[in-house]
Amino acid sequence: MTTPDQAVSAAAAAAGPWAAAPPGTRAATLTAVADALEAARAELVALADEESHLGETRLNGELTRTTFQLRLFADEVRAGGFHDVRIDRPDPDWPSGPRPDLRRYRTAAGPVLVFAASNFPFAFSVAGGDTASAWAAGCPVVVKAHPGHPRLSRRTAELIAAVVPDGVFGLIEGEQEGVEALRHPAIAAAAFTGSQRGGLALARIAADRPEPIPFYGELGSVNPAVVTAGAAKARAEEIAKGYAGSLTLGAGQFCTNPGLLFVPAGDGIVDRIAELVGAVPAAPMLNDRIESGYLETAGTLAGRPGVRRLVWADGPGPRLLTMGLADFAADKDVAGEECFGPLGLIVTYERLADVTVLLSSLPGQLTTSLHGEEEEAPELADLTGVLAGRSGRVLWNQWPTGVSVTHAMQHGGPFPATTTPATTSVGTAAIERFLRPVTYQGWPQEFLPPPLRDDNPWGVPQQVN
Amino acid sequence: MTTPDQAVSAAAAAAGPWAAAPPGTRAATLTAVADALEAARAELVALADEESHLGETRLNGELTRTTFQLRLFADEVRAGGFHDVRIDRPDPDWPSGPRPDLRRYRTAAGPVLVFAASNFPFAFSVAGGDTASAWAAGCPVVVKAHPGHPRLSRRTAELIAAVVPDGVFGLIEGEQEGVEALRHPAIAAAAFTGSQRGGLALARIAADRPEPIPFYGELGSVNPAVVTAGAAKARAEEIAKGYAGSLTLGAGQFCTNPGLLFVPAGDGIVDRIAELVGAVPAAPMLNDRIESGYLETAGTLAGRPGVRRLVWADGPGPRLLTMGLADFAADKDVAGEECFGPLGLIVTYERLADVTVLLSSLPGQLTTSLHGEEEEAPELADLTGVLAGRSGRVLWNQWPTGVSVTHAMQHGGPFPATTTPATTSVGTAAIERFLRPVTYQGWPQEFLPPPLRDDNPWGVPQQVN
Repeated sequence: MTTPDQAVSAAAAAAGPWAAAPPGTRAATLTAVADALEAARAELVALADEESHLGETRLNGELTRTTFQLRLFADEVRAGGFHDVRIDRPDPDWPSGPRPDLRRYRTAAGPVLVFAASNFPFAFSVAGGDTASAWAAGCPVVVKAHPGHPRLSRRTAELIAAVVPDGVFGLIEGEQEGVEALRHPAIAAAAFTGSQRGGLALARIAADRPEPIPFYGELGSVNPAVVTAGAAKARAEEIAKGYAGSLTLGAGQFCTNPGLLFVPAGDGIVDRIAELVGAVPAAPMLNDRIESGYLETAGTLAGRPGVRRLVWADGPGPRLLTMGLADFAADKDVAGEECFGPLGLIVTYERLADVTVLLSSLPGQLTTSLHGEEEEAPELADLTGVLAGRSGRVLWNQWPTGVSVTHAMQHGGPFPATTTPATTSVGTAAIERFLRPVTYQGWPQEFLPPPLRDDNPWGVPQQVN
Repeated sequence: MTTPDQAVSAAAAAAGPWAAAPPGTRAATLTAVADALEAARAELVALADEESHLGETRLNGELTRTTFQLRLFADEVRAGGFHDVRIDRPDPDWPSGPRPDLRRYRTAAGPVLVFAASNFPFAFSVAGGDTASAWAAGCPVVVKAHPGHPRLSRRTAELIAAVVPDGVFGLIEGEQEGVEALRHPAIAAAAFTGSQRGGLALARIAADRPEPIPFYGELGSVNPAVVTAGAAKARAEEIAKGYAGSLTLGAGQFCTNPGLLFVPAGDGIVDRIAELVGAVPAAPMLNDRIESGYLETAGTLAGRPGVRRLVWADGPGPRLLTMGLADFAADKDVAGEECFGPLGLIVTYERLADVTVLLSSLPGQLTTSLHGEEEEAPELADLTGVLAGRSGRVLWNQWPTGVSVTHAMQHGGPFPATTTPATTSVGTAAIERFLRPVTYQGWPQEFLPPPLRDDNPWGVPQQVN
């Protein structure tokens, strides 16, 4: 077993060469990891299913997403835009005084510690998005494995180790070991996907180091969705089906699960959603700890003042609760809390303006969704502004589960959905988390890092002023 | 007197309209502030000189820098590149699953609190770089005035208030009032330039809020400069003059002051620097508190083991100390501390490799400088890597004072030089600090913010995928 100090020290030794490796070399390594995972697909999916109970269909899809992500990030490495190279040529007439030769780029921050998540054994685990984006930035990675899938983690690590340079990847296990690595002076940044409680505790440790480091914690949320009167009238069946499907997908174990739904009071849509959710069979949850957490939080929510049960399955099956807006507003600190699993709380409202006011006071969210009709536009402007202000991704007539890995994806919202809301943990912009800017002033060409040279051997985009 | 709550509430009310104001409007406002300051130049410089004793030449230059900065940032607003617009068109064949219409941009974070600095009564104060960059991002600003120049702060605020929309600017005074504003729930980010002690205390308050906010603290450093044996031999006189000039400029009251100089042992350069520094007359410091802090820290440093006095003026005049590398290494926590004022510590070394090792263990710095000869390149690679790793700006044969306002400037280094080392507080990239990303998924054109629309009414650069 690798100790945290061994893993981090090896990462520190590899950091310089890995950051300085030409884009072609770094991209080829990311691609080689993708190839190795694809070659072991059957074995990995079987292992993942044994440990997570997520089913082969979902896990095959997740592995595809993971290897695609590695290849997409390899493309980004080759393109090199994230270095954000800016070259100011000397200018004796610059208005604030003679301007020297200044060349700025963003380069690898240093060794990165990744805390793997339980609910995505591929895409947010050992070779997942955090690892891929840190590698792309030029940072070696130490992954703290999630105890939910130890054998899959170890096997993935073996496959990676066979194709990446020494020190560019390391795997550690154990909660205390993770904390030890987080405190290691050579770690430059950390990324985490998981619960608010765990994430905030680790964020505090990162902040309390002698040299604090950025801690990118993606902590989940209730992802409020609002249905307007017009939409409820025009598309009740479509909305009910969409909501029931998104809520129960993957046994509700997504940080983008739409746990909180606002619908017009007195509308039949609530009954139809209850019918559909009630018909969804229980699916096994990731592990016993998550299941008991789900049942406990659901029980607490169901007991709050004004809450009524619409669907209440046995075991880990879906649950649906409802309450009025006034009761929710009076109890929003508890009623607005995330319940990790297939639990939906439908809040009924009389006036949309009250929903707008309420949402403006809710904690930050990963996503918010609005289901409306285009002709309602004038009445929706304020609400739309609030949704965009309280979340990182705002959807129109769509549901938030299914986070596409693209250039324009934003997966990160205001605190406490994310500890550093100006960043994303999904999509190519995720690479930016692991870069730091450095400016070279007055250096001879031969001393400059390749992206800053006039002959631009890496072929990165250069903004020359 | 405006209370913190009044100022922040007015900023909160102005935040939506200011962020949504077309680039031409925002740019025109920045330009109007620049014009207003220029029109009052004589009055402002006289006021600033009375309160800061920095002299009219320096203050006129600083005001020019400040108004240029406002105009440069107005240009950035018109160009709109910082919105980083990314548009993913729907793609049913996207490898990780059908891709929806996703549109991401970076938009104003919300009301910003700026703590003004004492040592730049224009450029890092009421209408300085933090204010200009927050405005450019689309954020209203509340400035907590520095007590070192209260009348100048109030007069600047009056001139601003006459030309910006209500709530886009507010001025508050008082330490407790600053803390109160920092704790106000409507403040979205804060920026600070000043001492490590003050900055870290405020950073803690920002982190301990119910909703923590980014705190951009620029806390200064000792800015190590290294002279190689080759450079000392080839250009002793030039280097000695350059160092003495940079060290004593503005009575050493710059966060980029080169307080720590490494030179080869036994070289005549030390005596020559002492001669030049000794000939610089004392200049008045900003205020009594800064002068007594300077004298006290200088006294402490002079009393450390192995330290010898080379220049020791009366009153606030320049001071120069020297010690060997071994003594410095043994005492680096104290000997490496910033002394705000014209104090230089020259550390003499036998082997350049020892300097490299030592610098790799020093705290983060705003700048580092290397004075060498091009033919020494092979021996300088390791040292250059360490300098770039421990600072935000690394200079070759130049001195760090004089921070040019440009596109490629980086003014911010690893902790504790800066609380958020991935950002800069000078140059156009400073705008990025006050933005947050939001992605719109599946929205009709007429609901989208202007930068995300296909017809692109703001004319911002759009990366369309």
